Amino acid sequence: MKTVIVGGVAGGGSAAARLRRLDEKAEIIIFEKGPYVSFANCGLPYYIGDVIPEENDLIVFSAEKYKGWFNIDVFTRHEVLSINREKKSVLVKNLISGETFEETYDNLILSTGSKPFVPKLPGCDLPGVFQLRDIPDSNQIKSWIDQHHATRAVVVGGGFIGLEMAENLVHRGLKVSLIELAPHVMPILSDELATILEKTIRDHGIDLHSGSGFESITAESDHLKVSHTKGTPIECELVILSIGVSPNSELARDCGLSLGMRGSIAVDRQMRTSDPSIFAVGDVVQVTSRVTDKPTTLPLAGPANREGRIVADVLSGLQSEFPGVQGTSVCRMFDLTVAMTGETPASLSRSKAMDAEKVECVHVHAANHATYYPGSSMIHLDLCFDRESGRVLGAQAVGKDGVEKRIDVLAAFIQMKATVSDVAQAELCYAPPFGSAKDVVNMAGMLGENVMKGLVRQMAWEEALRREDVFKLDVRNKAMFDANPIAGFENIPLEKVRSSLEKIPKEKEVAVTCNVGKTAYFAARILMQEGYRVSLLPGGWNTYSILPEKVKKQE
Amino acid sequence: MKTVIVGGVAGGGSAAARLRRLDEKAEIIIFEKGPYVSFANCGLPYYIGDVIPEENDLIVFSAEKYKGWFNIDVFTRHEVLSINREKKSVLVKNLISGETFEETYDNLILSTGSKPFVPKLPGCDLPGVFQLRDIPDSNQIKSWIDQHHATRAVVVGGGFIGLEMAENLVHRGLKVSLIELAPHVMPILSDELATILEKTIRDHGIDLHSGSGFESITAESDHLKVSHTKGTPIECELVILSIGVSPNSELARDCGLSLGMRGSIAVDRQMRTSDPSIFAVGDVVQVTSRVTDKPTTLPLAGPANREGRIVADVLSGLQSEFPGVQGTSVCRMFDLTVAMTGETPASLSRSKAMDAEKVECVHVHAANHATYYPGSSMIHLDLCFDRESGRVLGAQAVGKDGVEKRIDVLAAFIQMKATVSDVAQAELCYAPPFGSAKDVVNMAGMLGENVMKGLVRQMAWEEALRREDVFKLDVRNKAMFDANPIAGFENIPLEKVRSSLEKIPKEKEVAVTCNVGKTAYFAARILMQEGYRVSLLPGGWNTYSILPEKVKKQE
Repeated sequence: MKTVIVGGVAGGGSAAARLRRLDEKAEIIIFEKGPYVSFANCGLPYYIGDVIPEENDLIVFSAEKYKGWFNIDVFTRHEVLSINREKKSVLVKNLISGETFEETYDNLILSTGSKPFVPKLPGCDLPGVFQLRDIPDSNQIKSWIDQHHATRAVVVGGGFIGLEMAENLVHRGLKVSLIELAPHVMPILSDELATILEKTIRDHGIDLHSGSGFESITAESDHLKVSHTKGTPIECELVILSIGVSPNSELARDCGLSLGMRGSIAVDRQMRTSDPSIFAVGDVVQVTSRVTDKPTTLPLAGPANREGRIVADVLSGLQSEFPGVQGTSVCRMFDLTVAMTGETPASLSRSKAMDAEKVECVHVHAANHATYYPGSSMIHLDLCFDRESGRVLGAQAVGKDGVEKRIDVLAAFIQMKATVSDVAQAELCYAPPFGSAKDVVNMAGMLGENVMKGLVRQMAWEEALRREDVFKLDVRNKAMFDANPIAGFENIPLEKVRSSLEKIPKEKEVAVTCNVGKTAYFAARILMQEGYRVSLLPGGWNTYSILPEKVKKQE
Repeated sequence: MKTVIVGGVAGGGSAAARLRRLDEKAEIIIFEKGPYVSFANCGLPYYIGDVIPEENDLIVFSAEKYKGWFNIDVFTRHEVLSINREKKSVLVKNLISGETFEETYDNLILSTGSKPFVPKLPGCDLPGVFQLRDIPDSNQIKSWIDQHHATRAVVVGGGFIGLEMAENLVHRGLKVSLIELAPHVMPILSDELATILEKTIRDHGIDLHSGSGFESITAESDHLKVSHTKGTPIECELVILSIGVSPNSELARDCGLSLGMRGSIAVDRQMRTSDPSIFAVGDVVQVTSRVTDKPTTLPLAGPANREGRIVADVLSGLQSEFPGVQGTSVCRMFDLTVAMTGETPASLSRSKAMDAEKVECVHVHAANHATYYPGSSMIHLDLCFDRESGRVLGAQAVGKDGVEKRIDVLAAFIQMKATVSDVAQAELCYAPPFGSAKDVVNMAGMLGENVMKGLVRQMAWEEALRREDVFKLDVRNKAMFDANPIAGFENIPLEKVRSSLEKIPKEKEVAVTCNVGKTAYFAARILMQEGYRVSLLPGGWNTYSILPEKVKKQE
């Protein structure tokens, strides 16, 4: 059996190595367009920021090792130009000699990855305008900065790569401007958590322009000028375009394979394309959401590696299926960590997977470890679940420490189709330096359970701030309320609620808040049992304080 | 309805607060023997070590707050002396006034906790010999150190509290000796992981005596002398006895409630004792293992809090059951973290839950995050699973960073009855500062899957080192092998295995090792397909190097 693999990074490499382990006699050939068969793609921004000092540190696996360890022939600088499905062959071009040749296959694995999306706007092809794909790109960016004594950079696009690039250019000492079309960077994040992220970005000196459309780049005498829809043009010596990626699916499209969403290659759970002899893995494929079973794409290294492994299993007759993805991801931005897994109310509604009314979110703000142990910091966690079944659908969190731990735990729960009750009962590591007897994860589960059981109802801040007919109650102590009052709210500290019922009109619906939502819940339980109609404002003042300004201005 | 709660810390406090939230009209009374209704038990060692500077930092919740927030009457310094089940009353002694009185109940919740076990050996009652239960104990220890200008301490017992105490006494500048009866400290840990822990303990200047029985303490002129079975007596100014805890179940026993193992109180999944009006929670109860469904005890704060919550639900007519425990725990020892969850081969065989032959363990040594990103360190992870079903049964890990994260993720998987295949397919946070595209958790799952699918078989190091009829093969490169050779092993680097088959006798069983077990697995796959009988030595040289000396000496 002869297997030809197009693309050696991540998915292709995993497929090749696993296939050899399962079948010592298989013929395996890898064609890789670039100079390296396998390199640490995710390390590129840190290489540019000099956090990773040596190019060599980025080389994960060499062609020599593929031969020595796995008896696999790797051809770097070899581009596959086309696929002939009838003949079961590929046309290959040696990018060094320029010669082309045909290579036959029994099975073909496409691991062609994705490329940065470049908008068709003026100036995107100017010298000094870069995308970040590979090591040569990174070296060009580094040289450009050095040769042009660059002191100012503009990053267009505030997704994962854009944020990592911005951070690393700051590391290198550049003044960085960041332009994002969506209302906030990392658009997948909730408005509230994004407020925290954007504050960190600004606090570290980045000139942030969210909600502004990139328009053009023009070359001036000794610098570039980036125009965008909000604000004056920005001068700089280099521009990084990190607007997103699109799958390298031209080979697949040109030979008539079925495509999926956003130009990806459609595959089944065995990673098989519409041609039973052709498989595809990694950034280029359409996959299924573990949460919704709907098609999606997720250009990340982890799934790519596991998909490669699945193909090797399938080719060797082992029972294996790729279980889908859930979008677990993490980004460090200076001292802040942003992480997420699963779906959001927005993504569920976009994919029409669920009615928005069936989705409930709780917001918890709690310390990463026992507050009596020095050095604790706050984790802000949103947990999203199905109000009827209690099934956990997604989670997002930001904070300084321990953020990715909570998201990883919730990723495991989501994968196993856990409910908020399961999460409430999680038995997690606890000692004062590491956590709390009731971890933020437990707290989110418990609050979710309370909502499900009808012990408390939530009202969106937006609704409460808009409605005049709601009695707005804040049960923080007076000092906290006075320090950070919320206009329109009456302050009755929790310990006075029972003796102050006459101050709370029974005919009105009551919306309660406090600092993080905990004592407001206690107050809500008192009032509900006294016959009031009560709703909890999610996350208390801590959530209020990070609401988008346009929501707060409704007051 | 009138509910009386005996003991306010952790479980009792949680029950009280939740009960009030569910039932505004319930009468709730807490009797607490100690001076504080709720304090941070787990913080005591760090308070002694001055890591937590103020006593006040340890006070979690005051009697005033219970009244103000929850309208609950708390009586501190009130000891419940006996229970009259017929009259449904308790006899209470006010420890300040000395008076006793009777208090009736509709429901009684016992949250009496546990006490340090004190062996009946000479000198355990001498001045300068302490156990650590509460804040007064901690203050006595601190004063004793100061007043006696103590420079030397002996800690008897190397469990969680013993280790935390040893670390914190070192923090305070004392020379610490640690005596542990079992062959190694933290006896629940595998021999191999314990080797790493014991090295860290010794590296930080602690005089460690594992496998030595504590015998007696004698008072000399100005110091104490601690005798133990191995080695000369140790001189010191104070002794901490941390040999374990036993449940405070006297009240329950004296009124005839059914007891469970180790003197604990037997309860059902609603935390109800053999008397339907009496519940029990926290350190004092017998619970069920989530993994084996067998009875067990687990004196930890997290389960205590959640048990308290369950009782409140049950008393309020909500459907709630405590799902059992899985023994998730963590301990920091200087720069090392030790964490675990679920069962071990030893615990499974002790509880007769499973045949030892059905249990398989994989050992993985892998970096906490991408090695090309600066500052990575090694995580040593043991994953234990059912060889037939693949169900994950338990995990243990040690390392510098990210250890508790992996154990928390595996705790979630174990709770949800996941298999090694689920773990292999975990989608966890990955960016270079946080993890790897194939996390150590994934790697353990994948290796487990390989073992389950019969792609490789493992042989215990002990067996391989003992057997003469096994061909012992090490496929590390020559430099690594020469630097750390293993006697009796032939070195054929992986890339030469295919061309050196004539050096490997086909009639012998082959046991393969390498550095961490990865390339040995690759070699095993080559040899298996060439018709050899092959076994993998778990964890490679990294596991070999931490085997107990007695196992290594079999060579």
